[in-house]
Amino acid sequence: MRIEVICTGDEVLTGKIVNTNFSYMAQKLEDVGLSVQWETTVGDDRESLLQAFRLAGERADAVIVNGGLGPTIDDLSQEIAAQAAGVELVLSDDWLTRMEAFFRKRSRVMPPNNRKQAMLPAAAELIDNPIGTACGFAVDIGKARFFFTPGVPRELKRMLEEQIIPRLLARSGLQTAIHLKRFHSYGLGESHVDALLTGVEALVPDGSVKLGFRAHYPQLETKLTVRGTDLDDVKKKLQPVEREVRTRLGNFILAEDDQTLEGVVLGALTSRQGSLSVIETFTSGQIAARFAHLPGAEKVFRRGVVARELSEVCAAVGLNGASAPGSITREAAEIVASAARRQAGSTHALAVLIDLDDGPDRIEFGGTICLAIATDREVTSRRSRIVGGREWVRLGAVEMGLDCLRRHLQGLPVVERIDFEKV
Amino acid sequence: MRIEVICTGDEVLTGKIVNTNFSYMAQKLEDVGLSVQWETTVGDDRESLLQAFRLAGERADAVIVNGGLGPTIDDLSQEIAAQAAGVELVLSDDWLTRMEAFFRKRSRVMPPNNRKQAMLPAAAELIDNPIGTACGFAVDIGKARFFFTPGVPRELKRMLEEQIIPRLLARSGLQTAIHLKRFHSYGLGESHVDALLTGVEALVPDGSVKLGFRAHYPQLETKLTVRGTDLDDVKKKLQPVEREVRTRLGNFILAEDDQTLEGVVLGALTSRQGSLSVIETFTSGQIAARFAHLPGAEKVFRRGVVARELSEVCAAVGLNGASAPGSITREAAEIVASAARRQAGSTHALAVLIDLDDGPDRIEFGGTICLAIATDREVTSRRSRIVGGREWVRLGAVEMGLDCLRRHLQGLPVVERIDFEKV
Repeated sequence: MRIEVICTGDEVLTGKIVNTNFSYMAQKLEDVGLSVQWETTVGDDRESLLQAFRLAGERADAVIVNGGLGPTIDDLSQEIAAQAAGVELVLSDDWLTRMEAFFRKRSRVMPPNNRKQAMLPAAAELIDNPIGTACGFAVDIGKARFFFTPGVPRELKRMLEEQIIPRLLARSGLQTAIHLKRFHSYGLGESHVDALLTGVEALVPDGSVKLGFRAHYPQLETKLTVRGTDLDDVKKKLQPVEREVRTRLGNFILAEDDQTLEGVVLGALTSRQGSLSVIETFTSGQIAARFAHLPGAEKVFRRGVVARELSEVCAAVGLNGASAPGSITREAAEIVASAARRQAGSTHALAVLIDLDDGPDRIEFGGTICLAIATDREVTSRRSRIVGGREWVRLGAVEMGLDCLRRHLQGLPVVERIDFEKV
Repeated sequence: MRIEVICTGDEVLTGKIVNTNFSYMAQKLEDVGLSVQWETTVGDDRESLLQAFRLAGERADAVIVNGGLGPTIDDLSQEIAAQAAGVELVLSDDWLTRMEAFFRKRSRVMPPNNRKQAMLPAAAELIDNPIGTACGFAVDIGKARFFFTPGVPRELKRMLEEQIIPRLLARSGLQTAIHLKRFHSYGLGESHVDALLTGVEALVPDGSVKLGFRAHYPQLETKLTVRGTDLDDVKKKLQPVEREVRTRLGNFILAEDDQTLEGVVLGALTSRQGSLSVIETFTSGQIAARFAHLPGAEKVFRRGVVARELSEVCAAVGLNGASAPGSITREAAEIVASAARRQAGSTHALAVLIDLDDGPDRIEFGGTICLAIATDREVTSRRSRIVGGREWVRLGAVEMGLDCLRRHLQGLPVVERIDFEKV
């Protein structure tokens, strides 16, 4: 099945906004085994829209159009859809009623120009938008089925996932049950993980499990797309592969599916009624920034300190004179973490100290990371060297700090060789 | 002049990467008074590429193609360009020599597959890439001039700005000298600034100054595009308009052109040999994160503390017992800022305390921001209420904190009504 996407709107065409709606749609379709063959962006312009609809209607089986369903005069999608389909625009009483209820619920009167949003091409199939006033719809143009979606990202997401993807899957004749299983890891490069997982797809001999990756340094996402006749079939197929991936990647799997590293850390601390203090250098406080705003973190996150100089770090955690370490070492990190924990009265403290190379930023630029995790019973530490430029070192240090804390909380070794460090 | 853009590559078409190259190109063209009428994305696929080139060649005057100039077999742009133009691929001795020198300079031998990058359509105009091995070129297909550019963002940027835009301007017959003047502000909404600036374009009666905006909450960018016969002419035209914009937006202009708010703050502190401590609640430390990593900040940024609870903030800056404020007020912010400054021995301290509403996140969710700036001579403070959801409050508080510090350092009033606050 050939799928095309048409993105509309002057804001996208002039680059005022980056077209994340498209990358989102393309990814979502890939995740269920469909793919986009062609994408077109045009502005809020009658002639361009008509031409784009007609061209796609000649080439494709299914077309997703994004944007142009709003109440203002530059929202033209319904009008041009009707023109391209050779039908009239008709008022949808259903949608008008829905919109009036939408406004009533918010104690507002519907402005008259919203009525335009209920004008749909004759014979269009209405596609529900449960969270907005832009009405989705489907209509045939040329030889393709066109699906019209709102430009507001959260409305698009809900409509695509709940309503359009099932319709596309039904049209494509693909088996209906599809599941995407994701593993998030830190410390192993894509080619390394690819090699480690050689042959896992073959555990299900009918080819219905597909392995894929998405690298976003420092994390790597390992994806298993599984197809089956129904959800039970999918689960049965996934089970042995899933188990094997967990065995082979072992301690490096930091989270699965919608979990995040910082969420896993927060969960582990919350479940033991723990609390956390964080001390950082050079990272600009990005460890705290990943963690402190999470819902539930208010009960766990105690205090974060960021500084550039070790002496400032020491002063901030109450280390003075002879008790303050003079250079960045594992021992220094241990002393700082312990002092920070005592000072804030938290169950855990994480200290990430970075000794940066001198000189201008370049690809060989590196830093030595000394990190320590203190509890009331012990202090664990690690020393690691990362090269690849200042930003690379910064990102790597933040991830390593959080991941070592995750390992510590899960009872896994905090020191385990990773692909990104120099030895 | 009708301009189209064709983006190529499976990574873009499958959504693995977000197409920021396109939004960058579209913006750059808008900035010089050109605009894109149509954008197409296709994958690394011969048939799609050929069809896209032919369609654009029928419709447009100029086409920018991005990507597909690399050394691997899925890089097809040169091959399909030659096919669409109806010419052969020929080896460019010039580019081969350039590439060999490129590798020699890096003490490497050129791998044989890089030779492919020197194969260009016969009669193509070579467009230099001073920082990579992907050779840019221009060729006629249909009735349009096609410009082929590399997918690597920094190579694309340099080639577009230095080589392609001048060629497009020459072809478009627009006056050659064009300048983009930008003002960054915080606190006034786009429609408010638009109203404040009514008539400024008319200060240059020949229509060669165009006003535009780019809103990215909490900041707003006000843009003046000026056209003239040469750079002197542009400067002469810009001067009265620029002066008028500065007068009308006044204290709200926080930076101009490539300056940033945090950069302006750093510059002001550096020039007086100042130093800074930052205390934040709820922001996850985003004020420090904006500032602490800047080159030069190591001499200025002393210490950052982030916490969720006021009691933690107080403990972190050494306020205990009766000296510690019990609730978030202007006075509390003043006490905390003064204590933080004394403790870290910095010339300046900024404290941003946020009293959040209770309950679930929603559009009416708000927070009360109490901020204070302490020096050794005085303490200045401000109280403000922002609504619009948790993330909105967080972003607003970070910007307000930095902007009040900027105002203080520049001798401007720290308290001045903004559009984003509730009264």
